[in-house]
Amino acid sequence: MTTPHEYAQQHYDPFIQQLMDLIRIPSVSTQPKHKEDVRRAAEWLKEHCLQLGMTRAEILETELHPVVYAEWLEAGPDKPTVLVYGHYDVQPPEPLDLWEQDDPFEPVIRDDKLFARGATDDKGQMFIHLKVFESFMQTQGSFPVNVKLLIEGEEEIGSRNLDTFIEHYADKLTCDIVALSDTGIGSVNDPILVYGLRGLCYTELEVKGPVRDLHSGAYGGIVHNPAQVIADIIASMHDETGFITVDGFYDKVLPLSEEEKQMLQPAVERFATEWEANPVAPQLWGEPDFNPVERLGARPTLEINGLYSGYTERGGQKTVLPAWALAKISCRLVPDQDPLEIFDLLKAHIEKVAPPTVTWELHLLGKSKASVVDTQSRPMQVAVDAYEKVFGVRPSFVRSGGTIPVVGLLGNKLNVPVVMLGFGLPDDNLHSPNEKFSLEMFRKGIETSIIFYEGLSELPA
Amino acid sequence: MTTPHEYAQQHYDPFIQQLMDLIRIPSVSTQPKHKEDVRRAAEWLKEHCLQLGMTRAEILETELHPVVYAEWLEAGPDKPTVLVYGHYDVQPPEPLDLWEQDDPFEPVIRDDKLFARGATDDKGQMFIHLKVFESFMQTQGSFPVNVKLLIEGEEEIGSRNLDTFIEHYADKLTCDIVALSDTGIGSVNDPILVYGLRGLCYTELEVKGPVRDLHSGAYGGIVHNPAQVIADIIASMHDETGFITVDGFYDKVLPLSEEEKQMLQPAVERFATEWEANPVAPQLWGEPDFNPVERLGARPTLEINGLYSGYTERGGQKTVLPAWALAKISCRLVPDQDPLEIFDLLKAHIEKVAPPTVTWELHLLGKSKASVVDTQSRPMQVAVDAYEKVFGVRPSFVRSGGTIPVVGLLGNKLNVPVVMLGFGLPDDNLHSPNEKFSLEMFRKGIETSIIFYEGLSELPA
Repeated sequence: MTTPHEYAQQHYDPFIQQLMDLIRIPSVSTQPKHKEDVRRAAEWLKEHCLQLGMTRAEILETELHPVVYAEWLEAGPDKPTVLVYGHYDVQPPEPLDLWEQDDPFEPVIRDDKLFARGATDDKGQMFIHLKVFESFMQTQGSFPVNVKLLIEGEEEIGSRNLDTFIEHYADKLTCDIVALSDTGIGSVNDPILVYGLRGLCYTELEVKGPVRDLHSGAYGGIVHNPAQVIADIIASMHDETGFITVDGFYDKVLPLSEEEKQMLQPAVERFATEWEANPVAPQLWGEPDFNPVERLGARPTLEINGLYSGYTERGGQKTVLPAWALAKISCRLVPDQDPLEIFDLLKAHIEKVAPPTVTWELHLLGKSKASVVDTQSRPMQVAVDAYEKVFGVRPSFVRSGGTIPVVGLLGNKLNVPVVMLGFGLPDDNLHSPNEKFSLEMFRKGIETSIIFYEGLSELPA
Repeated sequence: MTTPHEYAQQHYDPFIQQLMDLIRIPSVSTQPKHKEDVRRAAEWLKEHCLQLGMTRAEILETELHPVVYAEWLEAGPDKPTVLVYGHYDVQPPEPLDLWEQDDPFEPVIRDDKLFARGATDDKGQMFIHLKVFESFMQTQGSFPVNVKLLIEGEEEIGSRNLDTFIEHYADKLTCDIVALSDTGIGSVNDPILVYGLRGLCYTELEVKGPVRDLHSGAYGGIVHNPAQVIADIIASMHDETGFITVDGFYDKVLPLSEEEKQMLQPAVERFATEWEANPVAPQLWGEPDFNPVERLGARPTLEINGLYSGYTERGGQKTVLPAWALAKISCRLVPDQDPLEIFDLLKAHIEKVAPPTVTWELHLLGKSKASVVDTQSRPMQVAVDAYEKVFGVRPSFVRSGGTIPVVGLLGNKLNVPVVMLGFGLPDDNLHSPNEKFSLEMFRKGIETSIIFYEGLSELPA
């Protein structure tokens, strides 16, 4: 009889072809022009789940982009129920001219890597779980545990409707374990398991000055320039060491325990090696009292994700005094910071520093809380064993600097263990041009997940 | 016999049709995509000059956009020679969505106003002189003075090759008087004559951080954000009153004499009235020790004309830590500031404040010196009389905040009186969406100029 492992080995080609079909749908959740594409990706997944043998698959509406829900609950009441989370929406592909391929949504395979927007985040990683389900169903006619699938279309816009969704469908979503693949593995030789995620408060600041773009000769010196004002406001939010000077910003930040600092030590060494091999900036930067791993995992940030004002064509000159300026300002948050409170603190800060020569608005575009999951839970130990079998090394635990809102939301609502089975590599360029997913990690992810689900089946329901 | 005045009155319709043909050529000098359009505009003007009866008209090359030169020197050696300057290039039309018409280069006439990019700056104003020449030639078969026409295609990019051009063609350009129409008149009831212009030092600052756009979760807190750095650099260049804190910036600024302050007094009152009637910003701003007219005419600025970094789609969120950031930084200069010295001061300032976590480049895109012309010259008195005849009020003298590089260049090289016959109105939206030229001012400009040239013919050669 063929095992799930053997089935997967024999079917990597069709698996990848199917994944490429999904990737070709440009499901960019933040761009209104792709609204129908987002829905097409949801429809594709629903159909695919039915083909795989899920007993139920449906599109559930939210205020914006739909959720795909599917389930197979035939493992029986003595087996645990695993809620598998993923997201089918992707980041915008811009700037297009920095991609090596013509079309970020037409996947290219090179050196056993799949290049495309969404390849690793999260279509490729999420697809691992679908293909593991298929491998069991096709060889054993059943799956080791009961499974519920929740694949959302708003992760890249802060899962803004997921809170309401989880509340509304609380009964449907009951489970014993939450599993997801939307994080990184560190390296093949020295894998990690992520146990902490930062939260997010994503805002857009608009500063408005004159009623229209003005001639900088005719008005320069008598009308306050909004581009200058927005620079002043941004500069006022931090000191030169990177410490954020917004009143109250750090009030609720929990310090790391000595124990946790110890646990993070392998990650600190791994980080130093990785940075030396592949420094992505002229030098490291940040709060001097914390090492890079602590800064990423346990310290909040205030980041400028975008700036726009006036005339910006490279090499061109236009002597304009712009009518307005815009900045995307986002904060990565750590326990116990609250995104709404942080938004209010930002507003209060701008209120204090903005001059009366302009008007301004601050809009909240996304919010989610940080989360830390239990590294000692039994499902987590099953995951540790599975990684060790496939990678030959026991994984170490790391806090990630990223944000996956669902972890905090489900953690709070369902109060069950969460396991993040990450298979992304540090050079996957997620959110950047030339995003890719290592097909080796796709294969190893499937192997690991087969062992993981088999292991879970031995836990109590 | 028909007079030039009568001829002009009978021919305003064809005059405007011809001007509209010229405006339809999108001669945007700063945008490489319009390079051929710029040349087409030059060709159109050369042909038009020949049709009007100029004895010579030619295209003279520069390193980038050509100059149109034409002449008619049949007035005789006892008449003065006037070099008439204008420019046929225009500002970029962006942002397109703020224009009330679909196409900024398809002129629309509304309420006796011609709306289009270049309508007032400078195609419409420059065209006045061509139509005055035509009106004399068609009625008297001659022009009251010898005339040389220099119409350039690089004014909106700082007349970057005009310096070399004037040197190269020094013999061709000898003259007794320089006249141009590229400034404003203030108001129909209370006209002004501009006697001072600011200079310009236009730069582009690029700050580069990480090798590519990064995920703000994966790197936020350990990699310095170039958008934040560029905001810090900009903020470091001024204090909260608008005073520029770049070392040495004000060292060469000449103070206004008491006499000049007195001369500017009518302009101060006019400005207050205009601002009250049409405030274009929430409130006035700038150095408290100078009134708005002094700030515009006699004080330098440091202005942010554009800002760009990362992801800027309004309402969207992308959690990117941008690889680079760009700012257009330009300074309006006053006598005796030197644009190259100011560029060096800016570089030295950035050198001092930029952190080692980024690299940066500052490019000089445009430079010109400020200029002040003699208000007591005989040609200026002829202009004052011409304005008084047409507008019924004696014009007052004002320093403009804008920059017309040719005035400084010709002033220095030829050492002859310069007269700026401006007919733009304050609400002409030059450099902004919905630029327009008042057709009443087009007609009054022609009337004034006919009287002006007649008056000049009585001056010695």
